[in-house]
Amino acid sequence: MNIDKILMTPGPTNVPTRVLNKMAENMIHHRTDEFGNIFKEFNERLKYVFKTDNTVLTFPSSGTGGLEASIVNMFSRKDKVLVVSIGVFGDRFAEIARMYDIEVDKLDVPWGKGVELKEIESRLTDEHKALIITHNETSTGANNDIQKIGNFMKNKKQLYIVDAVSSLGAIEVRMDDWNIDVLVSGSQKALMSPPGLSFIAVSEKGWEFNKRSDIPKYYFDFKKAKDRMDNELPQTPYTPAVSLITGTNEALKMIQEEGIDNVCKRHERLACMFREGIKDMGLEFFVDEKYQSNTVTSIKMENKAVDIKRIMEEEFNIVIAAGQGKLKNEIIRIGHLGCVDEEMINRTLGALKQAVKKI
Amino acid sequence: MNIDKILMTPGPTNVPTRVLNKMAENMIHHRTDEFGNIFKEFNERLKYVFKTDNTVLTFPSSGTGGLEASIVNMFSRKDKVLVVSIGVFGDRFAEIARMYDIEVDKLDVPWGKGVELKEIESRLTDEHKALIITHNETSTGANNDIQKIGNFMKNKKQLYIVDAVSSLGAIEVRMDDWNIDVLVSGSQKALMSPPGLSFIAVSEKGWEFNKRSDIPKYYFDFKKAKDRMDNELPQTPYTPAVSLITGTNEALKMIQEEGIDNVCKRHERLACMFREGIKDMGLEFFVDEKYQSNTVTSIKMENKAVDIKRIMEEEFNIVIAAGQGKLKNEIIRIGHLGCVDEEMINRTLGALKQAVKKI
Repeated sequence: MNIDKILMTPGPTNVPTRVLNKMAENMIHHRTDEFGNIFKEFNERLKYVFKTDNTVLTFPSSGTGGLEASIVNMFSRKDKVLVVSIGVFGDRFAEIARMYDIEVDKLDVPWGKGVELKEIESRLTDEHKALIITHNETSTGANNDIQKIGNFMKNKKQLYIVDAVSSLGAIEVRMDDWNIDVLVSGSQKALMSPPGLSFIAVSEKGWEFNKRSDIPKYYFDFKKAKDRMDNELPQTPYTPAVSLITGTNEALKMIQEEGIDNVCKRHERLACMFREGIKDMGLEFFVDEKYQSNTVTSIKMENKAVDIKRIMEEEFNIVIAAGQGKLKNEIIRIGHLGCVDEEMINRTLGALKQAVKKI
Repeated sequence: MNIDKILMTPGPTNVPTRVLNKMAENMIHHRTDEFGNIFKEFNERLKYVFKTDNTVLTFPSSGTGGLEASIVNMFSRKDKVLVVSIGVFGDRFAEIARMYDIEVDKLDVPWGKGVELKEIESRLTDEHKALIITHNETSTGANNDIQKIGNFMKNKKQLYIVDAVSSLGAIEVRMDDWNIDVLVSGSQKALMSPPGLSFIAVSEKGWEFNKRSDIPKYYFDFKKAKDRMDNELPQTPYTPAVSLITGTNEALKMIQEEGIDNVCKRHERLACMFREGIKDMGLEFFVDEKYQSNTVTSIKMENKAVDIKRIMEEEFNIVIAAGQGKLKNEIIRIGHLGCVDEEMINRTLGALKQAVKKI
């Protein structure tokens, strides 16, 4: 078959040629004005996508490193937090917090659903130092309404920490308008870039929490990173992943050219189109309509998920994902985020139809 | 001027076209056999360069992340260690250990020198859990004789931890023969790849220490990383930096083609050639001949280092480094590691001669 392999997974996603070519340019030394100027531009673009005036910090790490960084920089041992979990990544955030001796109240929502604001209202108390939540849960394909929750969090003394690793750049996120104090994301999802960078923005309130944090940290130290960002030309305390930054900078430029609001509308349109196709095939969604994500759709495939995934890759050159954790062989997850268009959606639907028939 | 900009810094170094092109290939999903097979090959190549049978772990992070990882995975709070420092990176290793509540005995060697074995012999006691040392100190251009020290460390109960970030792949390192328990390196120096990956190999004795370590860790957890490496096809617990791995894999292939021993000989030959040229110009080395590094040469430039660096870049398209810390304006540091050849050495010597004349 002559058609290129495409990634229709919840990430890493397809990387546009413009981004790949940028990464193939000669290496730049990071302690030069040349890099400083690129990094300055890059940071401004991240702020545009985050919809924030806060500084966005960049670390060479996976998204999980970014989650850990937000825990060790914001809290002190024995602090108590409320973690909302609607799947694997919510569970992981809670697990990281516990690892650092933080008392975790966990609000577990059945997988396949998002949380209801009233559940948070009844669980969040003065004892909690923060509300921690996943925006888009990659493991199930469900969303939390972080805007509605953000309105509720306005003027609260607790921090509002959002994992937007698999939503930012695809589903609307407005850090400042929605009162988010710590927003974590990564390069390899909707930002159309290779994995290896995590991004974290911190509000003024977040920086106050950072001052009292007593958990040891070195590589992920926010304060040190921020101090180097405040240079005339921004820098990082330790060697940055230069080529991933120049690559992601190009991807961010593409998002700016299309306009972030248009990018989100495109994701919504393609997600609707994909879901219509799935309904037409008579397949069943794992997630209730109300909570369905515009970046990843999970489809019930009882005991067949792993086989379907294999056929899609081997026979149609389309990489999709099976379930995670307890859902391993129960659902397939198809990503439609980042560098996607109608043609890719149609090709995926066509292939899936044939794969299902084969089983 | 039409000549391409070259990096003659202690890192990041020039990335060969073969490596750049590899990174410009379409993204691969990490949870596939395709990636598993590449990663398996990659790990075998790392073992070849490390000269070890131990598993080499890979993290998306800078070298500093790798140093931190080796501390939090090997020790418990209140452990006592002996850290040899001959410059900025030795100081950093000590600082990281202290951050994690480890008692640090610091053996400070005057900058510009390496440590003498007898100093270690007289300082290392039964109270110490480890000897921690930098192989090649990027900030000064001095080496420690880690082979000689390794012979002394044989059958000792203490761990022998070596930072080989700026030596591995250029100056001989034999992890197993030299009794090294934890060896840390990175992608952006002699391994001719972009920054963003750290590599860490751990001996059997190291894994015993890991079992009793009580310092919290999540992203950098060695045990979790090792468990995923022991799969039939190796994996990582969290999303790996796929394109940096495929790129570095190509660089490791180039090193294998040349042969690691030949690569080290080439570095020695080019370093001698460079030092001869510096002597001919009548310039003075910062480091005593006995300790001079084959990857970076530091040259005294009292109060002129920053200007020389600027002229070299602006007028000759050659990026070099000034001093670090207290040596900022006192020395220039010229890297000759990774993707370097005679022509680049000659071009750098020629440019430096003219730059010095101008001042």
